[in-house]
Amino acid sequence: MAKIKVGIVGGTGYTGVELLRLLLPHPEVEVISLTSRAESGRRVDDLYTSLRGVCDLKFSDPSDASLRDCDLVFFATPHNVAMQTVPELLANGQKVVDLSADFRLRDAKEWSQWYGEPHAAPHLLTEAVYGLPERNREAIAGARLIACAGCYPTSIQLGFLPLLEAGLIDVTHLIANAASGASGAGRQAKVDNLLTEINDSFKAYGVAGHRHLPEIEQELRVVAGKAVSLTFVPHLLPTIRGIHSTLYGKLTGNIADIQAFYERRYASEPFVDILPKGQYPQTRGVRGSNVCRIAVERPAGRDTVVVMSVIDNLVKGASGQAVQCMNIMCGLPETMGLQGIALIP
Amino acid sequence: MAKIKVGIVGGTGYTGVELLRLLLPHPEVEVISLTSRAESGRRVDDLYTSLRGVCDLKFSDPSDASLRDCDLVFFATPHNVAMQTVPELLANGQKVVDLSADFRLRDAKEWSQWYGEPHAAPHLLTEAVYGLPERNREAIAGARLIACAGCYPTSIQLGFLPLLEAGLIDVTHLIANAASGASGAGRQAKVDNLLTEINDSFKAYGVAGHRHLPEIEQELRVVAGKAVSLTFVPHLLPTIRGIHSTLYGKLTGNIADIQAFYERRYASEPFVDILPKGQYPQTRGVRGSNVCRIAVERPAGRDTVVVMSVIDNLVKGASGQAVQCMNIMCGLPETMGLQGIALIP
Amino acid sequence: MAKIKVGIVGGTGYTGVELLRLLLPHPEVEVISLTSRAESGRRVDDLYTSLRGVCDLKFSDPSDASLRDCDLVFFATPHNVAMQTVPELLANGQKVVDLSADFRLRDAKEWSQWYGEPHAAPHLLTEAVYGLPERNREAIAGARLIACAGCYPTSIQLGFLPLLEAGLIDVTHLIANAASGASGAGRQAKVDNLLTEINDSFKAYGVAGHRHLPEIEQELRVVAGKAVSLTFVPHLLPTIRGIHSTLYGKLTGNIADIQAFYERRYASEPFVDILPKGQYPQTRGVRGSNVCRIAVERPAGRDTVVVMSVIDNLVKGASGQAVQCMNIMCGLPETMGLQGIALIP
Amino acid sequence: MAKIKVGIVGGTGYTGVELLRLLLPHPEVEVISLTSRAESGRRVDDLYTSLRGVCDLKFSDPSDASLRDCDLVFFATPHNVAMQTVPELLANGQKVVDLSADFRLRDAKEWSQWYGEPHAAPHLLTEAVYGLPERNREAIAGARLIACAGCYPTSIQLGFLPLLEAGLIDVTHLIANAASGASGAGRQAKVDNLLTEINDSFKAYGVAGHRHLPEIEQELRVVAGKAVSLTFVPHLLPTIRGIHSTLYGKLTGNIADIQAFYERRYASEPFVDILPKGQYPQTRGVRGSNVCRIAVERPAGRDTVVVMSVIDNLVKGASGQAVQCMNIMCGLPETMGLQGIALIP
Repeated sequence: MAKIKVGIVGGTGYTGVELLRLLLPHPEVEVISLTSRAESGRRVDDLYTSLRGVCDLKFSDPSDASLRDCDLVFFATPHNVAMQTVPELLANGQKVVDLSADFRLRDAKEWSQWYGEPHAAPHLLTEAVYGLPERNREAIAGARLIACAGCYPTSIQLGFLPLLEAGLIDVTHLIANAASGASGAGRQAKVDNLLTEINDSFKAYGVAGHRHLPEIEQELRVVAGKAVSLTFVPHLLPTIRGIHSTLYGKLTGNIADIQAFYERRYASEPFVDILPKGQYPQTRGVRGSNVCRIAVERPAGRDTVVVMSVIDNLVKGASGQAVQCMNIMCGLPETMGLQGIALIP
Repeated sequence: MAKIKVGIVGGTGYTGVELLRLLLPHPEVEVISLTSRAESGRRVDDLYTSLRGVCDLKFSDPSDASLRDCDLVFFATPHNVAMQTVPELLANGQKVVDLSADFRLRDAKEWSQWYGEPHAAPHLLTEAVYGLPERNREAIAGARLIACAGCYPTSIQLGFLPLLEAGLIDVTHLIANAASGASGAGRQAKVDNLLTEINDSFKAYGVAGHRHLPEIEQELRVVAGKAVSLTFVPHLLPTIRGIHSTLYGKLTGNIADIQAFYERRYASEPFVDILPKGQYPQTRGVRGSNVCRIAVERPAGRDTVVVMSVIDNLVKGASGQAVQCMNIMCGLPETMGLQGIALIP
Repeated sequence: MAKIKVGIVGGTGYTGVELLRLLLPHPEVEVISLTSRAESGRRVDDLYTSLRGVCDLKFSDPSDASLRDCDLVFFATPHNVAMQTVPELLANGQKVVDLSADFRLRDAKEWSQWYGEPHAAPHLLTEAVYGLPERNREAIAGARLIACAGCYPTSIQLGFLPLLEAGLIDVTHLIANAASGASGAGRQAKVDNLLTEINDSFKAYGVAGHRHLPEIEQELRVVAGKAVSLTFVPHLLPTIRGIHSTLYGKLTGNIADIQAFYERRYASEPFVDILPKGQYPQTRGVRGSNVCRIAVERPAGRDTVVVMSVIDNLVKGASGQAVQCMNIMCGLPETMGLQGIALIP
Repeated sequence: MAKIKVGIVGGTGYTGVELLRLLLPHPEVEVISLTSRAESGRRVDDLYTSLRGVCDLKFSDPSDASLRDCDLVFFATPHNVAMQTVPELLANGQKVVDLSADFRLRDAKEWSQWYGEPHAAPHLLTEAVYGLPERNREAIAGARLIACAGCYPTSIQLGFLPLLEAGLIDVTHLIANAASGASGAGRQAKVDNLLTEINDSFKAYGVAGHRHLPEIEQELRVVAGKAVSLTFVPHLLPTIRGIHSTLYGKLTGNIADIQAFYERRYASEPFVDILPKGQYPQTRGVRGSNVCRIAVERPAGRDTVVVMSVIDNLVKGASGQAVQCMNIMCGLPETMGLQGIALIP
């Protein structure tokens, strides 16, 4: 069988190089196109030394023909790029996995409130399938266009899912206290992201309103089957990778063994791991891997439940999840190319 | 006027060397005794190079006579040390500032539940004054024995104080999501504290129950004037110093301008700084300083209030606070020796 | 063909878990035994969460029979362990790859000077083959016992090799200024390795004499064919992984194009990569990979040549190199299981 | 006596905020002017939260009159700024301490080779006094214009000084292997300085030629009294502050006790500390302090001497040294305002 031909738009960022790390050794995929307006003509292994010896690709201009020869195209771009080009690719019969925020919100008006401009392809917002396989596996299998779940949203949804599905917590007062490594901000030349500004320090940001909030509330609403109210406070960690979400909810229903309940819910999920009672996840435990590790605790037997959920923001929170979606869309085993073990220490 | 003669018991740990950093240049203090069973006879600047040229002291055995010549003694020891010796020092007419947990809880039974042994001086638990000047300034001024507030408890109480005093939040569902740098665990040779175990990573710990919880609940109860229920989840940061607490409460009362409300409450406090609206504190902003910086936010105008509170765990969370208490006890200006500016970057 | 049965003695340390990360997905290997006196009976994925879902092994006592069933045994132990057991394993017809220092020095007297006790198996010191495939590939193929090259020695030898082989530098005045991440010190509970002691800092150590010096001089002497004198100064980096060696030598011979000279020497080596002129290696560029990246420069055209050589101390400096040796000993493709791409960022 | 009125040009960078940290509590100085073209009108404590409560200054435009009222002006600017304005200030009878590279080289032609443009005030290059008090104390006392020694040059010169003055090493083959924290690159929005690019990593840079090389060689030549040849390789540390230089030289003369020799040379220097034999300096040991700590070693008694020299690049390598020069120029005690103890841990 011929390999699947894939392209990556926006290959200079961190999700781009991470896609290459995962796709180059993937047994059923061939990366044939890699675009970047700014770096057009430059070898990718000149920018990312780690790829020397394993990748001969050069960045090409997005207008390059090679993109049109792909069976499937990943967008590893900032928001507002994919929505300009996706309609044309779909019309051309190509599949698209978008890692950006362009197709995550269902409501074009809400999208433009948060992203500050009109949406360029609002007709695709309802067609786009939300790329979180643990919730949408079947829809993903049949989709042309995937809007990959964001990094914070992935860790928060997987943590809250069992409680919301079972209607066990007060959805009017959910709290998600999350922390992300600096790669979440991408490879942008900003003073705020300098080592000298964020190393040996910690802070909250976006407390008054973060772009991931509407995405999370939209999706939790679907799960809960009713309106939810989430207080979401992201923080910046002085680490490169990793998201740790600490979730708080007030139990409303009765639950005998919350540990067993979580274990049952995720028993057949290849990329969700419920830790044994009393063990808590650390971000390094998933460094470089596609696994989401979760612990659940009910301190002092009181009515507040605490869920801890960690992912590698560049893998399960971005490129790994994108490859997982691709595997599903293409009828491949879902875990193919995604079984690398986390790098510890 | 003669300088105040002070001693430090347990000077080899991080709060010990931090006391020296603050006390050696203090204009009204002379450090005359520094004890350590393990390092007796060794020069302190041999252990801590930073003190070369500014400190000729040697560690002496705790039984050494010099401790008895002090006007005031700091305990920078693990729990269960101070309570053995404090009664004798008090009987000798000496003042004591204890940085450990020995005298923080009012209830001897509760103390022994959390610390696993009977309390050695239960009769002093009610006399000991809780060392958080922003709440107890007058009592501290007249005290013989200070139980310095813990690091997490300091940042959490200063954050919740205005809301609890005014009865504005639901005290049955308080949440404190806190994160501390690794120096909070002291200078102990444990695998868990190795750079290789915690750098480039983040995790929660003590979720089922942390020793600081009873202290915080006890003190919040005093402020609120009724029982409170707090969910406290500490996390470990890959930084050396700093505590960041993110506090969540459900507003019950009406408050027009929560920003102005916080600013008013702390207007005359020299070591509490309310940031302008929209600015959030970072731990590096208080690195090495005795200031607690606080921001308050009400996301989307909903009924959940978010308070962010940062301190340097070794300064306002330990040694700086101890010096602040000493200044008050000795009738010195409260800020004396504590006006160093945070080290940025 | 049946898979090769391997065992790991001392699997609780960082080189142990790294061996598992590399061997578990290795297509021709089955790990059947994992020993640890201290953790006997404990599941390895309880100690290293990263292995959850991919490894069901429990640590067994070193006396456990399973070790005798192995075709090949890795020693990932501190020095002075392997030399006690290796003779028995060899007598039993098993192959051994020792990652420790026990068989690296040819001279038992020198060994006991540096390691403070008599060598337990001096008769094997001449039989043991020094495990640096880029120098000893053929000898490794026929060996029963491999003494894997140390981490600093690997990066330093690969950097100096071309110049020494060609007799182009003054061997009486070689300088190796090297820096290692903290995992080089292993997973030992020592104050010196705490995050609070080494993060945000940098220092030299072992300047008066480091145990790797006799190993490096012994091997450089073999390459040069005469006595060499090396000044070796190791430094401690506030990173988890990575060794960076900056090597200095005085050119004695004439060399037209030193860049081309290095490229030629390593043209057919799968795990040595000479960077293009003007690019310098960084330790993150080999994080988790078995590659050694090297740059060579001749500042201002003067007679001092500077070589920069980086490896991941736990991979090419330890476990990866051990697997590479195993592949060669067992007639497998040398790169099998070792082609993982470095984790960037 | 009236306080000395000082101004800071370019107060938004890291050396600017560090000058404020040192000058605001200085008993004999009043900062009356702080300029920044980009941030004109903004309060400095809005940019640097650490200054809240201790500094009411706003940035003003460099053309602002307040700069003309200063007795002394610091330039904390990138190169090519000071040389435009300094002539006017000197003509106005004001003193200048320049932290940038504008007046460090004696030769205008060499300056323009390294900085890519003609020098704007070449007539001042010979008048400018090189600001390294340990070498030039008397000249500094009488100077109008100080060219503060660079960060790498300070640590390297202080390390080599005793050996060069005494003619004890081969000056044709000096090696300086140095490493700096990221604040050495300033507060510039560059991808290369992002936490995600440099944390948990280490690399050399500028190996083919670094702008500090001509400065160091020029000054070492003055000390040695003859031409010197230095190989200087700077490296980038994943830390915020700190420079560690490891220096290598071949002993030519005879020296009985090199430890005592170094101790004697610096016995009366308030800011140079020779560590006891066998102790090596770490960068954290001078974090925030103006001290240079040095160790000297002669491995295996061979003829290569190794000197380790650490400073805080923002203090003794920049702002602290500038204040030290100011103290000398203004007849104040040299250590005034510079006795802060390093922050450990």
